[in-house]
Parts: sequence; structure tokens; C-alpha cells
Amino acid sequence: MQDQLMKKGVFKSDAPFRLESGKELKEYHLAYTTYGEMNADKSNVVWIFHALTANSEPHDWWSGLVGVGKFFDPEKYFIVCVNMPGSCYGSSSPLDTNPETNQPYYHNFPMFTVRDMVKSYIPLRKALGIEKIKIGMGGSMGGQQLLEWSILEPGLFEYILPIATNAKHSPWGIAFNATQRLCIEKDPTWENPSARSGIEGMKIARAMALISYRHYETYENTQQGFTQETENLPIDQKVPKSESYQIYQGEKLGNRFNAFSYYLLGKAMDTHDLGRSRESLEKALSAIKAKAMVIGISSDLLFPPEEQAFLARHIPNARLEIIDSFYGHDGFLLEFEKMETILRAFIE
Amino acid sequence: MQDQLMKKGVFKSDAPFRLESGKELKEYHLAYTTYGEMNADKSNVVWIFHALTANSEPHDWWSGLVGVGKFFDPEKYFIVCVNMPGSCYGSSSPLDTNPETNQPYYHNFPMFTVRDMVKSYIPLRKALGIEKIKIGMGGSMGGQQLLEWSILEPGLFEYILPIATNAKHSPWGIAFNATQRLCIEKDPTWENPSARSGIEGMKIARAMALISYRHYETYENTQQGFTQETENLPIDQKVPKSESYQIYQGEKLGNRFNAFSYYLLGKAMDTHDLGRSRESLEKALSAIKAKAMVIGISSDLLFPPEEQAFLARHIPNARLEIIDSFYGHDGFLLEFEKMETILRAFIE
Repeated sequence: MQDQLMKKGVFKSDAPFRLESGKELKEYHLAYTTYGEMNADKSNVVWIFHALTANSEPHDWWSGLVGVGKFFDPEKYFIVCVNMPGSCYGSSSPLDTNPETNQPYYHNFPMFTVRDMVKSYIPLRKALGIEKIKIGMGGSMGGQQLLEWSILEPGLFEYILPIATNAKHSPWGIAFNATQRLCIEKDPTWENPSARSGIEGMKIARAMALISYRHYETYENTQQGFTQETENLPIDQKVPKSESYQIYQGEKLGNRFNAFSYYLLGKAMDTHDLGRSRESLEKALSAIKAKAMVIGISSDLLFPPEEQAFLARHIPNARLEIIDSFYGHDGFLLEFEKMETILRAFIE
Repeated sequence: MQDQLMKKGVFKSDAPFRLESGKELKEYHLAYTTYGEMNADKSNVVWIFHALTANSEPHDWWSGLVGVGKFFDPEKYFIVCVNMPGSCYGSSSPLDTNPETNQPYYHNFPMFTVRDMVKSYIPLRKALGIEKIKIGMGGSMGGQQLLEWSILEPGLFEYILPIATNAKHSPWGIAFNATQRLCIEKDPTWENPSARSGIEGMKIARAMALISYRHYETYENTQQGFTQETENLPIDQKVPKSESYQIYQGEKLGNRFNAFSYYLLGKAMDTHDLGRSRESLEKALSAIKAKAMVIGISSDLLFPPEEQAFLARHIPNARLEIIDSFYGHDGFLLEFEKMETILRAFIE
């Protein structure tokens, strides 16, 4: 990505921000990335939402879709992506200093619900001079935010593409996240006032999460047999590749994330419910005015296709595409060619 | 179950027992349960195999199938079930005293592979005077044992019903078990020489395992909403029912199992491979002489139906039935009416 096309910014809000929990932040800030320039009639805005552990740089994690020559081309669109508050990639986070105590927040950082997140984006949107967004797109927890925003400001988006996401997080999805939180809670360092508290627990949580992001077939195709170093050892000492892969994935996240953010973002996902204080899910979805293309992944175990079918049934005039893929939930990050085909047919 | 029909026994072997790992036990014992009596021509023997955390009492965990008036009626059949070595329900286990040290084995108890388990059953079979088994039946890890035995002693079984099981444990299944082992390994008490070592880690492991035993639909139908005590609290303090259910299931196992057994039995499942030292899986399965009815559960995420289809394709003349159920893997414990229908059609 050429430097002149990508810009990083931090938006600061000094107005008190009241959360759905009733808690209040005296201030908050949002790290965001923009690509390209807004055109004269402000009609080329794209807003991309990231998922659980990603950041505001979709040219990195959605490189097949965002970049020069890609569908979301910064030479054509003005693309915005904001880091979720509570995450650790530049927005307000549990590792920040609490202005009331001059100590890091750690365990005292309040939970932003998905709805709180979206409400926190509105002042940034206005500060960027955005009145209309041509395309909103996001997968998983990113899709949850996109849907919330489409309901909170029904005239804002022209097109939305919620991918591998849902109207309300399922008891099944909550079971995955809650069990992951247990890993963090039982880590003996979790209560410590330290940026690395609970990190070993978070690594196990990530290993568990990975299973929910993939599928039987994904492991079948890539993780057969034992590690090379152990394949000639006695049977009780051999390490299956699949086992070492789980450990590796936990370590990888341990090097780039913190347990506070992981814990809070998981809780935010669990409380996602478009119908909260809005009568019902169906009623909430019926308020969406954007043209919607809902996308699912056939093998998604965490956000199964019936959740996207529900969205498409209740968003007025929505269309539904289920991408045939064996990648499971992670298909929303990997099946960019199929997503691009859908995008072209839908937008152009 | 009337006392005169059910008998509990402990079989002791004082001959040294060499395991696949090369390790040797000076002695071992097996706790087993029998129901009914062997008939004069010894033609009414049924052998039932239990799964991971169960015991040798199928009248308890398969109450719909085993008992007076049920398909496996002790007034008709002589039914045997043996507790897996390594488990904690009476057979040789990590909590036993190691005769070489006069201390409990704990971390030093050797892993019995599924094949080792079956080899340890053969002296018991002989001691009971069993030369032929009319019906062998087992689900999940019980099915793995049944298949091993059908290959080790090809003339032994007349009919076999392996349920929700596989020829070789999958990389996907290993990922689940390995991640559960991480929970135990990271428990700060795990290294202690105590019967309760690693128990908190095991509880999380069980919560995680539960997800793999169920299905999206199972949680969807039973775990909606928040716990009654928290439903009126602010959003960041509400506890989803699904979350409290995960914790509850962990606690429940914590009260009846130990982390050493859990750890070793999971490893045994992971090393299950009918093809080990037998050229190939296909070749191993082709040696089975019993009439086989392979049963799968349509929504099984852990042992998906394609695994049972593979078994049925390679066991000579095998039949395959996939039970339509939304219970997931646990369907093998819950769908007893459908299993009974299959049993009647197959055996009678």
C-alpha cells in the first residue's frame, strides 16, 4: 500500500460517553485508517469493519479485497476502517491509563457492547465529513457492528454486506466464548495488575477459538500425522501436528494481543442482540433501509448459514449468498475471490 | 436393576503387561459388570463398551437399551461391560498405588492405547469362559475399542455395532482433545502429587468437550437468555444461561473424575489408529469378519458421518445407518429408541 493512499488517524472525543451498562467514560479515542480520498460529492465512502482480534488495516487482513487494483481500490473509493474500542490496536483499551486514577484500567475498563461501539463511531464519521456511506462491509463481529449501525442510522448506508454474522449471538457461540473466558479467569496471573495478566489462559482460549473458526475438513486437509521431531518416538511421546498447531496458534496471539481485550470483546460479541430495547429481532431488522447482500459460508460452525438466512429473511429486500467453502467461519477472511464476484454483481 | 441380575467383578492379571509404548505394568486389574447368565451353549454373550468418562454400568448410561424388558435384556443375554484401564471407575488407574514405589502413580501411570485396552480385555474374556460374542456394541471411544477387538480377534464377534466412532482419530478430534489437555497442563496445581491435581483445568476441558458433543441446535433449543438471578442486572453483569451451563458441566465432571484419567484417555483416543502396524486403515478394516452395522449421528461434529461411511465402505458387507438427530455426538447416548429399532432389524 502506497503511503500517500493510506492514512492513520486517532479521533479523540472529550465528551462523556455513556455505555449501555450505565458506566461512563470521560473520554475515548478511536484509531482508524483511511485509504484514498473522498470525492467531491462525497459518494465514494466505504466503511469496513474488522473482526475480533484484527485491526483497522484491512489492506493487511483482507488483502484480496482492499488495495490498488482490488475491488476496494483507494484510487476509486474513500475507505475507512476503525479499531473497535476495547481492542488493543490504538483505540481506547484496557491497557490505557484511566484518567481518574492515573493507573492503567486493566480489569476496570468497561465493556463496550457492539451497539456502544457503533455509537462511538458516529462522532468520528461526522468529523470525517461523511454523511452517506456507499458500501458497508464486515464479517463476524464486524458484521454485527455493520448491522447495528444500519439500524441506528437507517439512511446512512446505500449497500451493506454483512458476512458470516448474525442478528443476535447464539447460545452456541456464547458457549464457545464463555469457555474461553474460563481459561483466562483460571489463569493464576489473571488478577495481577499487569499488561500480561491472563496471557497463558488467553493462549488456550485462542486455540479453542481456532477450532470454531475452522472445520473438520480444514484440519483433515492440513494437519495429518505427527510432528517430524516426534514421529519416530514411542506412541506415548509422539505429538500430532494438529496438537502442535493448536499450541502455535495460541502462542501467535499471545505475542500480539492481551487478555483484557480478548475477554471484553468476547463479552461484547455475546451480548450482541439487534433486538435489545427494540421489541424484537425481526422488527429491528425491518428498519434497515440499505440494500443488503447477506453472505454466509457453507461450513461455518460458529455463525452457521441459517443465521444469515434469518438476516436475509427479515432485512427488507435483502439477498442471500452462501459461499461453498470448507474453511469454516474463517472463510470470510479467505474466500475473497468468491466475495469479490458477489460484490461486483451486487454493486456494479 | 435387580441385584441377582447384575454382578460386579474385578479381574486381576499378575502377568507383566507390555504396552504399545514399550512401557510395562507388573500387574493390572479391570473392573467389570455383568448382567444375566451365560446360556448352556455360550451363545448369548453381549459386550458393551463405554465411552470417555463413563463406567462399566451401561444400565445406568444406556438405560434405554440395557435392562429387563429392554433390547439388551439380562433375562436373555449375558452382558459384559468393562471399565477402561486408565479410567477412574475401578480398573487400573493413575490414582492406584504403584507397586514399585508404594506411591500413587499420578503422572507416571502409562498410557493405554485403545489397542492396549483391548489386549488387556482378552484375559478377562477367557476367565469369563467367553469364546464367542454374539453382539459387540459401543459408541465413540467405546466403538474404537470394539473395532480394534474385531480386528485383533476376527472370529470373536458375530455382530458388531460401532456407533459415532472412527477408524482413526481425526486431526480435528485431536485438536479438541489437545486443547483440553492444555487446560490441564496450565492448571498451576497440575504438577502436584495429589488426586485433585489439575482439577480446575479439567473442568474447563470438560466445558470445551461438551461443545464438541453437542450442536448449535442443541444449545439453541435449551440455553436461550440469561440466568434468572442476573436477567435484571446491567448488560455487563448479565450471565447467559449458556455460560452458566458450561460452568455447571465442568463442575459436574470435577465431582466425579480426575485430571490424570481425563488426560490419558484423551491421549488414547488421539492415538487411535486401526491401521497402525497394519499396512493401512482399509486393509485393517478388511480383516473384520463380524456382521457390521455402523451407526452415525447426522449432526455429529466430533465424529462426523463421513467417518462412519468410511468404516462401512471398508468393513466387508457392512451396513450403514445415519440417525437423523440434532443432539450432535451425544446422540449416541440419547437416541436409544432409534438405535433399538436398528438393532431389532439387524439382529432379529
